[in-house]
Amino acid sequence: MTPPWVHPRLSADSPAEHDGHKAIDINDLDRITVIGVGLLGGSAGLALRASRPEIVRVGLGRRRSALQRALRHDAVDEITLSYTRGLRGTRAVILATPISHFASILEQIAPHLEPGTVVTDVGSTKAEVVRLAERTLPKHAHFVGSHPVAGSEKTGVEYARADLFDGAACFVTPTRRSQPDAVELVTELWTSFGSRVMRLSPARHDQVLARVSHLPHAVASVLIAMNHDLLDAAGTGLMDTTRIASGDPQLWRDIFASNRTETIRAIDQFEKRIRQFRHILAREDDAGVEKLLAASKRGRDAWIAGKLARKEMPS
Amino acid sequence: MTPPWVHPRLSADSPAEHDGHKAIDINDLDRITVIGVGLLGGSAGLALRASRPEIVRVGLGRRRSALQRALRHDAVDEITLSYTRGLRGTRAVILATPISHFASILEQIAPHLEPGTVVTDVGSTKAEVVRLAERTLPKHAHFVGSHPVAGSEKTGVEYARADLFDGAACFVTPTRRSQPDAVELVTELWTSFGSRVMRLSPARHDQVLARVSHLPHAVASVLIAMNHDLLDAAGTGLMDTTRIASGDPQLWRDIFASNRTETIRAIDQFEKRIRQFRHILAREDDAGVEKLLAASKRGRDAWIAGKLARKEMPS
Repeated sequence: MTPPWVHPRLSADSPAEHDGHKAIDINDLDRITVIGVGLLGGSAGLALRASRPEIVRVGLGRRRSALQRALRHDAVDEITLSYTRGLRGTRAVILATPISHFASILEQIAPHLEPGTVVTDVGSTKAEVVRLAERTLPKHAHFVGSHPVAGSEKTGVEYARADLFDGAACFVTPTRRSQPDAVELVTELWTSFGSRVMRLSPARHDQVLARVSHLPHAVASVLIAMNHDLLDAAGTGLMDTTRIASGDPQLWRDIFASNRTETIRAIDQFEKRIRQFRHILAREDDAGVEKLLAASKRGRDAWIAGKLARKEMPS
Repeated sequence: MTPPWVHPRLSADSPAEHDGHKAIDINDLDRITVIGVGLLGGSAGLALRASRPEIVRVGLGRRRSALQRALRHDAVDEITLSYTRGLRGTRAVILATPISHFASILEQIAPHLEPGTVVTDVGSTKAEVVRLAERTLPKHAHFVGSHPVAGSEKTGVEYARADLFDGAACFVTPTRRSQPDAVELVTELWTSFGSRVMRLSPARHDQVLARVSHLPHAVASVLIAMNHDLLDAAGTGLMDTTRIASGDPQLWRDIFASNRTETIRAIDQFEKRIRQFRHILAREDDAGVEKLLAASKRGRDAWIAGKLARKEMPS
C-alpha cells in the first residue's frame, strides 16, 4: 500500500554516476561508524546490536564524555575522537550529529573514506544535506540520505532505545547520482531496525516534511508563546498539542533554516486553511464547522487505525 | 499561587440576588441528580461514590439504554427518564449533557426544582450557558456554572473514571447574581473530586478557554485537513499535535458556536503570531527563530514541571 507521493524505486531504475567501487552487501558488513552518538546515533547503535550483533559499532565524536556515556549505555563497542582511526576498515557510516555540523564533518571524513563506503545520515531535512554531501564526498564513496521519523523532545544517549525506529517511517532519499547498491544497503539497514522505508526525492521529502512536521512544530511553539500567562488554565489538550514545542531549539532552528522555503510555503497553506475555518465560523455556518471537524476526525481516526492494524504503534 | 487572571472570590464578596432559600451545605447533601450520564456525568457519579458514598446518585436522561449502561458501570445508584421523579428530594443537580441540549433541559427542570436546589453544569463554554440558566431557572434555585477541564477524545460512560477530575483544573464561574452558599457548594464538590478550582467570570472564562482550548482544537483539525493525503509520512509529532482533532465533531461544533466571538479573536491573535514567525524565518533571522523556540520550550517545560511538582500529572 504505497502512498501515491512515494516514488517506489526512484534511484534503482536511474542511471547512477559512480566509479565502479560497488557498495558492500549488508551481510558482509563487519564494521559501522556512527558519528555523533546522541538519541538517534545511540539508538542506531543499540538497534544494530539487536539486529546484527556481528557488526562492530564505532562511536566517533568530538567530546570524550559523550562518547563514554554512549559506551556505558552499550550504544557502541569502540569510541574514538580521531577520524583516521574511526573510519579505518569501515564500509558504512551513519552521520547523526545536528545538521549544522554536517558541512564540517563531511569535509573532515572525505579524505578518510575507503572506496565503496556508504555514508548516510539521520537529518530531518534532505535537499540541502544531500546536495552538500554529494558535492563534498569523493566519487569512490556513496552518499544516500536518510531521515528516520523517530525521536522525541528528549535528547542524549540516555534516552536511546534499540526499538526507537521500530514501526517508524524512514525516508531514504536517493538522487540520480546514487549508486543502487548503496541505496539498497541503506534501505536494508533501516528495514532491519523495523522501519517502514519510503523512498522520496530529497526535494519532495522536504515538501512533505514541511507540512507534516516542521509546520506543526512552528504552530506548537506559537500556541505556547501566545498563551505564556494562561498555561495554568490549560488541560491535556494543549499539553499534547504543544508537546513538540519542548524540542531542542538549536536542532529545530537548524531544521527551519535548512528547509526555509518549504516551511514558509506550508505556513502559507496553513494560514489559508485556518482563515477558511474562521470564515465558516464567523458566518455562523455551524453545519460547515461540524463537517470540517468530522472530516478531520475521520482522517485522523483512519490514520491511527491503519497504524494499529499494521502494528506500527502500541494499542 | 493564584494566576493573575483569576478573580479569587469574585462572587462571595458581591451582593447576590436570591430569595432567602439558602443552598444546602455539602455535608447535608443526601441526593444528587446527574442529567446526562456520559463520560463527564458518569465520572462525576464515580467520583461522588468515592468521595461521598453516603450521597444517593440519580441518573436522569432521555435514553433508557444509556442510563442502564451507567447503572451497570456503577456511575449512578438509580435511573429515571422522568424529571418529576429524578428531581424529587434532590438539592443538587449536575447538568452533563451536550451544551446544545441545555436550553431545553433547563426549561424542563425549572418547574421541578425544590427551593434551595443548586444547579451546576460541566459545559466547556460559560457566558451563554450562565446567561441562559440565570434567565430560565426559578429564583428559588441557584445556578453556578462549572467547567471541569477534563475528558478526552473518547465519549460515553464506558470511559468514565472516578479520578477523571483528579488534579485537573475546574473553572467555577459565578456572577453578581450567584448565591455565595451555592458557589461554595459547587466549589467544594469539585474540590472533593480532586480538582483545582479556579473562579472566573463567565466572560473571562470564555476568553481564556478560546485561547488555550478552542483555538488549539481548530488548529489541530486544520493540520489534519491540509495533510489528509500525507498522513502516512507523519510521525508521533503530528499524532500528538492533532490528538484533539479526534474529538466528537458535534460536541465541538457546539463549543465553537457558543464561544464564537472569542474563538475568532483567538484565531486572529494566533494568525498574527504565526505570521511573525514566518516573517522571522523569511528574513533569515535564524537566531530570532531559535530565541522564539527557546522561549516557548522554557514556558512549556516550566508549565509541565509545575504540574509534576504539584502532582497534577503522573511523572
